[in-house]
Parts: sequence; structure tokens; C-alpha cells
Amino acid sequence: MKKVCLVIGAGAGIGGTVGKRFAREGYHTVLCRRSDEEGLHRLVAEIEDAGGSATGKLLNAIDDGVIEDLVAETEANIGPIEVVLFNLGAQIGNRALMDTNYKVFEMGWRLATFALFRVATSVLPLMEARGSGTLLVTSATAAVRGNAGQHSHAAAMGGRRMLCQTLNAEYASKGVHVAHVLIDGAVDAPDTLGKMLGPENFAKLREAKGKDQDGLLVPEHMADTYFHLANQHRSAWTHELDLRAYSDLAWWNHAPKLV
Amino acid sequence: MKKVCLVIGAGAGIGGTVGKRFAREGYHTVLCRRSDEEGLHRLVAEIEDAGGSATGKLLNAIDDGVIEDLVAETEANIGPIEVVLFNLGAQIGNRALMDTNYKVFEMGWRLATFALFRVATSVLPLMEARGSGTLLVTSATAAVRGNAGQHSHAAAMGGRRMLCQTLNAEYASKGVHVAHVLIDGAVDAPDTLGKMLGPENFAKLREAKGKDQDGLLVPEHMADTYFHLANQHRSAWTHELDLRAYSDLAWWNHAPKLV
Amino acid sequence: MKKVCLVIGAGAGIGGTVGKRFAREGYHTVLCRRSDEEGLHRLVAEIEDAGGSATGKLLNAIDDGVIEDLVAETEANIGPIEVVLFNLGAQIGNRALMDTNYKVFEMGWRLATFALFRVATSVLPLMEARGSGTLLVTSATAAVRGNAGQHSHAAAMGGRRMLCQTLNAEYASKGVHVAHVLIDGAVDAPDTLGKMLGPENFAKLREAKGKDQDGLLVPEHMADTYFHLANQHRSAWTHELDLRAYSDLAWWNHAPKLV
Amino acid sequence: MKKVCLVIGAGAGIGGTVGKRFAREGYHTVLCRRSDEEGLHRLVAEIEDAGGSATGKLLNAIDDGVIEDLVAETEANIGPIEVVLFNLGAQIGNRALMDTNYKVFEMGWRLATFALFRVATSVLPLMEARGSGTLLVTSATAAVRGNAGQHSHAAAMGGRRMLCQTLNAEYASKGVHVAHVLIDGAVDAPDTLGKMLGPENFAKLREAKGKDQDGLLVPEHMADTYFHLANQHRSAWTHELDLRAYSDLAWWNHAPKLV
Repeated sequence: MKKVCLVIGAGAGIGGTVGKRFAREGYHTVLCRRSDEEGLHRLVAEIEDAGGSATGKLLNAIDDGVIEDLVAETEANIGPIEVVLFNLGAQIGNRALMDTNYKVFEMGWRLATFALFRVATSVLPLMEARGSGTLLVTSATAAVRGNAGQHSHAAAMGGRRMLCQTLNAEYASKGVHVAHVLIDGAVDAPDTLGKMLGPENFAKLREAKGKDQDGLLVPEHMADTYFHLANQHRSAWTHELDLRAYSDLAWWNHAPKLV
Repeated sequence: MKKVCLVIGAGAGIGGTVGKRFAREGYHTVLCRRSDEEGLHRLVAEIEDAGGSATGKLLNAIDDGVIEDLVAETEANIGPIEVVLFNLGAQIGNRALMDTNYKVFEMGWRLATFALFRVATSVLPLMEARGSGTLLVTSATAAVRGNAGQHSHAAAMGGRRMLCQTLNAEYASKGVHVAHVLIDGAVDAPDTLGKMLGPENFAKLREAKGKDQDGLLVPEHMADTYFHLANQHRSAWTHELDLRAYSDLAWWNHAPKLV
Repeated sequence: MKKVCLVIGAGAGIGGTVGKRFAREGYHTVLCRRSDEEGLHRLVAEIEDAGGSATGKLLNAIDDGVIEDLVAETEANIGPIEVVLFNLGAQIGNRALMDTNYKVFEMGWRLATFALFRVATSVLPLMEARGSGTLLVTSATAAVRGNAGQHSHAAAMGGRRMLCQTLNAEYASKGVHVAHVLIDGAVDAPDTLGKMLGPENFAKLREAKGKDQDGLLVPEHMADTYFHLANQHRSAWTHELDLRAYSDLAWWNHAPKLV
Repeated sequence: MKKVCLVIGAGAGIGGTVGKRFAREGYHTVLCRRSDEEGLHRLVAEIEDAGGSATGKLLNAIDDGVIEDLVAETEANIGPIEVVLFNLGAQIGNRALMDTNYKVFEMGWRLATFALFRVATSVLPLMEARGSGTLLVTSATAAVRGNAGQHSHAAAMGGRRMLCQTLNAEYASKGVHVAHVLIDGAVDAPDTLGKMLGPENFAKLREAKGKDQDGLLVPEHMADTYFHLANQHRSAWTHELDLRAYSDLAWWNHAPKLV
């Protein structure tokens, strides 16, 4: 039986690409996303054409019971989940405080923090019982600094990061690895960043960042690090790392300040 | 007309004591807490006996509309709020992941993160219109590190801290000061810590920490720093500071590690 | 006998101004700087004219034995040192790696890190014996993030910050308080920042930052916080805080990034 | 011609083991250490026996000119250096402030901070001219928190970390990658930790940490992550990550505190 990798948030950017990578390495990959059924089928087909195996599921993770059922059904019908990639984003662009209503603020938390808690509750005890497993958590710069307009996103990601720490504190010694992957830059993903910026601005940004089309974070290359994390021996685990393109400055360096 | 200081979470520990301090300095202090009407009356009476003025309100801050109404009514009936102390805690002691149900996890967020967002939305625009104001936010070590068993608390406080940053990023330049006060130690507060530990363990802890009864954080002395923060000139504002007793180690120092 | 406050690095900005503040509060202040004898005399005269008492010393802190002798002589001839303000800076402006020679790099360490170690070694055991004392350490954003061109400064300040932590870890429980004051913005100091930028650029910066001449950190107001730190009761000590003007962004917010 | 990997601090723990790993992957590895010529020969022999190629050098990195000559000679006689592993440690165990003399404090800086600056100055411009290269820097928990007794080590490692940031800020966009590897736990290295603890305590520690001999950081497995970092595509670079054994708590989790 194949090892199973479950991807929650499997769009065309990080989620789908990391999913393909695990499929290539022999995992049966379960790809879940909220919309674009056609895109999902294409993703599964690509994996199968390359000799891998995958299942696609269209679902809304924040609905009651959806994550819980997904984990239970995957375990029952496909196999023991060895790796989960939790990849739900909650970036909604910059909004002033008074343009951020309660619903939006709560939605950020439901997607970025609470959904991870639900995943953890559903899957970590199973991994604990097996003595091994990996939970890869995509995160963002907003988890470590709150910029203007990021009220919902930063509060949600700050919660996500602390939750990763409490999970590691309880589960690492049981053989379960939680890794917080701090994405500190724009990802070359047409269907998230591209949509947020619009095609023209997205093209301009890609141009500005690097002439060889590698000035934004390229999901194919990011996937190497996600896969590496899932394969670290338990005697040498990383709990947190950052990722950015060479042409970018680290978040702590954006500073026109004088001192 | 007196300046107004609004305390949300005015128990017998930090909240009530800081409230008394602002009252002593000439503020009309509005003290809000969820329970113990008698204790609340006593607090108001103490302030009035000392020549100050205060209003006590019994309310459940997380109920719909309560914070919003509180701010509106205070502004309408008492006066412009110059200082808010947001002092709602969300510590429930250590609970393993599987003992932390969804409701508990959400309650942490409602108390520690969302209630602050609601306060900010209600009061910061008023302060902005007046060109000044201070929002003091009591926070905890759990905002910067997630320990085992702190799933709900750490996720909520991590969100609180990032929210303080996004609020400062948007409002500081408008003359509104948000300060994140990281309480990094046990507070000598019989009705929160004392209740959590039980009277016997609480007495033991006080004894162990320092013979002169100052080995825990003493609210009267903490109040000095809260008051100082509210009085910093806008050319020299602190966004974050930590507080702990001399006899305690900073959170980053708890380390039996070898390196 | 008056309490003694020793200021190492008492220029016309933070050092001299904080020194004046302690003098006003009844401390005999010992003001030490490397150059500008006339300015030093003026500072002492100002303090004395205001009814305070002070001693001025021209010395080069990084010379062998100078700090050690200063502490010994102050204790012998003036009185027990209750507060030290360590205020030596090591900012030399931005220099590319290949423009930062070994001597410059070492000089940063001698000023910003090693001199603090020498001060600590000289004065903390005396404070320990007395069961109390405060070491206030002026620090910079470079202690928490390394920007381009700050090779010497950031390495030195990063060391300074960690040293403050190791000192607190060993001495706090003995009643000695070390506070790391992270200056996160430009200080309105004509003879340091003003010299570095030149008078014209300095005037422009002041203008740009705030129309009421309070858009840069004003030493007189910073002094309030330094004094507050030295007066915190030992049951509620701050080990680290930041300071910046309201019109400025916190270091973690300087971010044109998209995420 | 083979790619060259230069290891400064190639003992039997991390340095030598990572060196062997790069050799196995086709690099000519230059292994430098201060003492134990026999051990060094054995290391080179092991690499050659496995079909790799290596050069061993006995040298004292902190001596004047030694690092500079090493880089120049390696480039001249062996080939362009693609990867440097800077692996000099400066841990001397815990020493109270008054047991840490000036010489010891300075030695920490010379080994942990200044030697890295010298390496950077020597090798980064060469890498910049070639448009690529990697500088892997082994670091320690002491770079992010200063524990009691770690005065020399923490100050030196805090400087090392900030220096890595300033180097990245200047060189990343030129195609040169600097990675700060925060070793957050005890390494299973008989000739460093083992010597420090003595054979008996070392054996006890190994036992206590994990029954399968993987409760300490195993250099062979750590080498995977070092090698991964050197092979990250420039569109997705990590500037900092941490490593610890599954059985260990992260440094931020060592907390008997109540909150």
C-alpha cells in the first residue's frame, strides 16, 4: 500500500505543486480544494499521466465536519495519512481597520487558525498511535509581523504559528513532526497572487523581480523544501524555516530607516 | 470634565488595580467585569473613598454588541475615552490537544483576539478623530511561544499580539498609541491565579518565589508601568515591553539545555 | 549622600539628556564622554544651575582600564553607583562589506559589546553586594535585524542584546536590573544624527517626520522612559522595550512586500 | 573540475560529517581543523576510500591571515569554492560573569563572529563575481537567547546571527546564499559534547534522550539538511532554520512557568 499525503488547499500554486511532488515520490496524494473542479481534474490527470496516483476532492474546509470527515474517510478508504500539507491561505489584501468587518476577521481565523486546529485534532492522534507522521503548515510573513491593513490575516497567522508551536511541544516527542513554513515573499502563482493583482500587475511584478523568471518564489522549487522537511530524520527536525527568492529582501530587512 | 479610562476586564488583579491607579491620577475610570458584583462595588467604593470617581459595569464582553454599546454609552454619557485597558484573559490552564474541544478553542479566540478587534473597531476611530488616545493591551508569554497544553491560549494570544502590531501600523501616525504589555510571569492575584492553583498551592508559590512577598508580579507595581505607557510623549512611544518579577527568569531563559 | 548615576556616553542626545533627568531627580550624575570638553562643561553647568550636582569626565571608554578605573574611582570618591546608563553607540552609517575593514568591524565590537561586558564586570558585583542597582543599556534596531551595510553595527548590537540577556539571567534574582532599550528610530540629536546626515538633510528629515518637531525621538521624552525603568519595583521589571516616534513605523513594519 | 566545498571547523561531529556528505555528492572537500592530525587523516581517508576526494588542513583559523590564505590557496590550487561550511564553535560551558575573563570573552568573539566576518570578506566577493555560492553557518540557540553563564558564547553567537542577516541583505540579490542553521539541541558528537560532559555523563544523556540512539542530534542526519540548503534553487532560499531531535523541546518551550 502506498503512503498517503493529504493536501488541504491544493490550488495551482504551492498546494498542487507540492502534491505533485509527493505523488512523484510514490505517495498517493489526496488533493482538496474549494473550487475549480476542472483544474482539480487536470491536476489529478497530470499526476496519473506521470505514473503517480491521486484523488481529487472538492470541498469547503471551513464547513462543519468537512475536515473531520475528510481525514476519517481518507484513513478508511485510502490508507494511513503519513503527511498532511495544510495550505489554506487567508490573505485578502490590505484593508483598513474600518473596512475589515467582523465577518471578514472571523473568516481569517476560521481558515488560518481554527481549520489547522481541526486538522490537528483529527490527524495527530492517528499519527501518534503509529509513532510517526508529518504536518507541514504553509504560513506567511504575517505570522511574525503585523503590517497595516493586515488585521485579519496577521491575527490569524499569528495564531497559526503559536498553534504550530503548541502542537510540536506536545507531539514531537511522540514522533510526530509539525513544520511551520514561513513564506516570506510573493509566490509565482497565477491563480492566487495573479488574481489578487490582476494579470497586468502580476506580469510587471514578475518582470521587476528577476529576469530569469525566478525572482518570485517558484512552487516547483519550494516543493523541494517541503519534501525535505517531510523526510528529515527524527533526530534532526526543523520546526520553522523561511523561504524567499534570492532577489527579495527578508521581512526584517525592509527598512528605509536610518538606524 | 475628567479624562476617561475604560477598563475591560477589571478583576481584583491587574485590571482593577490599574483602574485604581488611573482614578488616583484624576481619570474617571469605567470598570467592567463579568461577575462578582460585590467585588465590583467594593472597587468603585475604594476609588471614591480615595477621592476619585469611577463607574462599575457588570457585563459579558463576548456577547454580541456589548463592547460596542459600552464604548458608545461611555462616550455619550461619561466622556471621551482617553485610555482603554484591554485586560481580558484567556488562560484555562494546560490541556492536552484532545482535551481541548472546539468550543474551548473558539472561546479563547473570542476573548483574547476577537474582543480586542471589536474594541479597536469601536474606539480607535474616535481616538483618531481626536488625534490622541491610548489602548493598553495586557498580554502573556503565550503570545510569543506556544507551550504544551496552551493550544487555545497561545493561538489566541499570538493573534492578539499580531493584531496590536497591525493596529499600531495603521493608527500610530494618527496619534493613537497601542501598547502590548507582555506579562511574563505569575501575577500575585488571588482571584485569577489563586483560583486556578487553589489557595494552598498559591501560598506555596508565593513563598517559593520571594520571601518579601514580591516574588510574583505585584499589580500595584505593574500599574506604574501601565500608567507610564499611557503618559509617554508621542515622540517616544513603546509598542511592546515585558514585565516579570526579579526572582523570575525571562521566558527565553527557561533552559536546562546544554547549549 | 546622594545616589549616583553614571552615564557612559554622555553626548548632547540621549546620554546627556537622561543624565540631566537623573540629576533633576536628585542623583549625583557622573557624565563621561570622549570629546568636546566645552560641551561637557556646559552640561555640568546646566545641571548645577538647576540645583543639581554632576561630575564631568573626558575619557575614551575603549582604552584599557578606563572603564574599570572610572567605576572604582566613582565608588571610592563619589558614592555607590545606583544606576549606570551605558550609552556608547557604534553606528558608522552604511558600508558595503568590502568597505568595512577588520579594524572597523572590531571597533564596533569594542564599543558596543566588549565595553558593556567590561562595565558589567566592574559594576554588577558591587550592585549584587548591595542587593540592588540598575544597568540601562541603550540599544538599536540593529540588535534585532541586520540590514545591508550594517555589518559592523548589527554584529556588535546583536552581541550587546544577548549579553543583556545573559546578565539578567545571572543577576536579576540578585536584585540587579538590566534593561535593554531598543531605540527603533532616528533620534533628534544634532551632534550624532545631525553630524552623520549633515545639517541640510537633518533639517529635511525633521520636517518630513512631523510638523510639530516631534516626529523624531526627542531625548527629553525618551528620558522619561529611562527614568521609569530605573524606578520599576523589582516585582515588575522590564528587560526589554522599544522606543520610536508616533510618526514612524516599527522596524518590523517596513514592508513594501505583498504578503 | 570538481566543485569545491570548504569546511572550516571539520571535527568528528557536524563539520566532518557534513564534509563527508558533500564529498559523497561529488564535491572536492577541503577539511580544516585546529588539532588532531590523525583524526583529520582518517577523515580524508574515509572520503577517499568511498571514492571521493578531499584535502585536510591543520590550521588555527583565528590566527592572522590564516582564513584569508586558506581561501586564496584553495581557489588558486584546488578550484572555485562553491560552498563554505563555517562551523567554528565557541561554547565553553557555563561560567558566571566573574569567571569569564576579558580574554575568554574576546576569544568567543574571535571564533564565532570575527572569523565569520573574515570568511565572508574573503569568499563572498569571489562568489559574487561568479554569480553563485553558498555560505552555510552553524549556529546555536545562544544566538537567540542569552542564558546564565553564556556571556561569552551568547554575545558571540548573537553577533554571528546578525552578521548572517547583513550578509544576506547585501549578497542574496547577487546570487550568494547565506544560511544560518540554528542548532537547538545537543549533538551526538563524542569529541565536542562528549569531551565537555565526560564519557559517563555523555552516555547517560544519550540514554535519557532516546532509546534508539537518536534522541540527540545525529550529524549524519543533520547533514541532509545542510546539503539541502546548499541545493535550494535561488527562487526559494531559506535564510534561517532550526534543528533539534524529536525528543527534545524547542528552546522557546523550556518552561516550568505558569502562563
